[in-house]
Amino acid sequence: MDWGTELWDQFDDIERHTQWGLDLMEKYVKFVKERTEIEQAYAKQLRNLVKKYLPKRNTREDPESKFCQYQAFLQVVKELNDFAGQREVVAENLMTQICMELSKHVQELKQERKLHFQEGRRAQQQLENSFKQLENSKRKFERDCREAEKAMLAAEKLDQDLNATKADVEKAKQQANLRSHMAEESKNEYASFLQKFNRDQSQFYFLEMPQTFNKLQEMDERRTVRLKEGYGVFSETERQVMPIIGKCLDGMKAAADSVNEKNDSQVLIELHKSGFERPGDVDFEDFSQPINRTSSDS
Amino acid sequence: MDWGTELWDQFDDIERHTQWGLDLMEKYVKFVKERTEIEQAYAKQLRNLVKKYLPKRNTREDPESKFCQYQAFLQVVKELNDFAGQREVVAENLMTQICMELSKHVQELKQERKLHFQEGRRAQQQLENSFKQLENSKRKFERDCREAEKAMLAAEKLDQDLNATKADVEKAKQQANLRSHMAEESKNEYASFLQKFNRDQSQFYFLEMPQTFNKLQEMDERRTVRLKEGYGVFSETERQVMPIIGKCLDGMKAAADSVNEKNDSQVLIELHKSGFERPGDVDFEDFSQPINRTSSDS
Repeated sequence: MDWGTELWDQFDDIERHTQWGLDLMEKYVKFVKERTEIEQAYAKQLRNLVKKYLPKRNTREDPESKFCQYQAFLQVVKELNDFAGQREVVAENLMTQICMELSKHVQELKQERKLHFQEGRRAQQQLENSFKQLENSKRKFERDCREAEKAMLAAEKLDQDLNATKADVEKAKQQANLRSHMAEESKNEYASFLQKFNRDQSQFYFLEMPQTFNKLQEMDERRTVRLKEGYGVFSETERQVMPIIGKCLDGMKAAADSVNEKNDSQVLIELHKSGFERPGDVDFEDFSQPINRTSSDS
Repeated sequence: MDWGTELWDQFDDIERHTQWGLDLMEKYVKFVKERTEIEQAYAKQLRNLVKKYLPKRNTREDPESKFCQYQAFLQVVKELNDFAGQREVVAENLMTQICMELSKHVQELKQERKLHFQEGRRAQQQLENSFKQLENSKRKFERDCREAEKAMLAAEKLDQDLNATKADVEKAKQQANLRSHMAEESKNEYASFLQKFNRDQSQFYFLEMPQTFNKLQEMDERRTVRLKEGYGVFSETERQVMPIIGKCLDGMKAAADSVNEKNDSQVLIELHKSGFERPGDVDFEDFSQPINRTSSDS
């Protein structure tokens, strides 16, 4: 079942529906665009967070960097940076593969749809013109028949009239003939326009409009298929980054696993031990043993 | 190798390092807290986006909802809502399992560390007091030795003096004996304080401070292990939601796959076909056949 045969008299509904289809596609594009903006903001905030917590200068000389618990912290922060990078990839892919692609498609289809409906309206207009011509010729035929009838009755009446001159009768008969002839011509003209109109109408309803409606159906189905693909891409872009995000998480886990508390205790020892011995006992200083005796020693 | 033996003379460095450890833990908590805020903002924006694109009222009666391409759109939007829900789960888990847990741990450790260093300072003070006592007793012993020396020399000199009375000589000898006796007492007191100090010093350097430093080492290693666990949770929370996010993506893909363009074309037909036949040919209206003849027919 196609639109050409089943919806032959639903020009307006087809017009509305095909517009609805384009609006739906634009609505989806807008939805995705807003999602990419959210994604980019998220990635940016994560990047800023990372920047805030990574050291500004080369820390290789900092004693802090000798502790694996600190290195692990830096590693976790760096992996978050890569994670943010993957969110940017998602945003970019959504933008190019959905927003840009489908927007382009919508613009193309808007033109195509416009052409089809213009065609349709033109055909409608032509049929209307054909109908007007038919109606005009019909009215003319009717009028000419009435006139012919009247002229004939007038001639007959005059023929029966005892007071009428033969000239008058002749004139009246000629008029009747003339009117009859005109009615005959109008009839032929009307018949001709009728034949033309019936042909035009048949062509319109059985060929032109079905073709136009079927082209619109094909166009709308094409649009629907593109939209379906667009829906698919929405989840695909997320799935594509999952393995790489998984690697970020692996990196974070490895950083956690690398933390060795005993190692860091040893690092502190290495950094700060003096190597000195602990003080031993203080000696007794015997002031009762004199250092020098004076002259009384002699 | 432990701090008690290797870093026996590095009180300040141990104080600094244990503070550094607590600061690092607080820095990590702050980092994670800021991450959860970013995550919550992200989820909120996604939720708002979903709310914006889902219909406000029950659309079951809307003709729009009969088209599978539209239902698929709604389904994709709903799955994004669930996706946002998972981001909220991540934020919540990070907050409870890392921020709240580790903050509590830091507060406890701050108290514990404070007690240890108070202990250390008290022990240091006691040793200093013991040393002061030793120094005082030594100075007294020294002074008393000098006095005894002087008194003995004075007595000897008087003994040799021809002009001195026996009474003076006797007095001088008694004074010398007295001073000698006092010096002997000071010596014993000094010896006693020396013994005490050496005992205190040995206790300080070989027992008390090592114990305190080792407790601090154990405390710091305990903190490091908790920090290590905290690093692990950072990636774990993300991994935990991956399967459920996968289901959201499956849902989106199913929605995409459910789009059938031919089906929607038929829906339009069902909604709008009139069932009427297309117009047939228009008949010829022959006005040349009069409907009624007037009196001229008789």
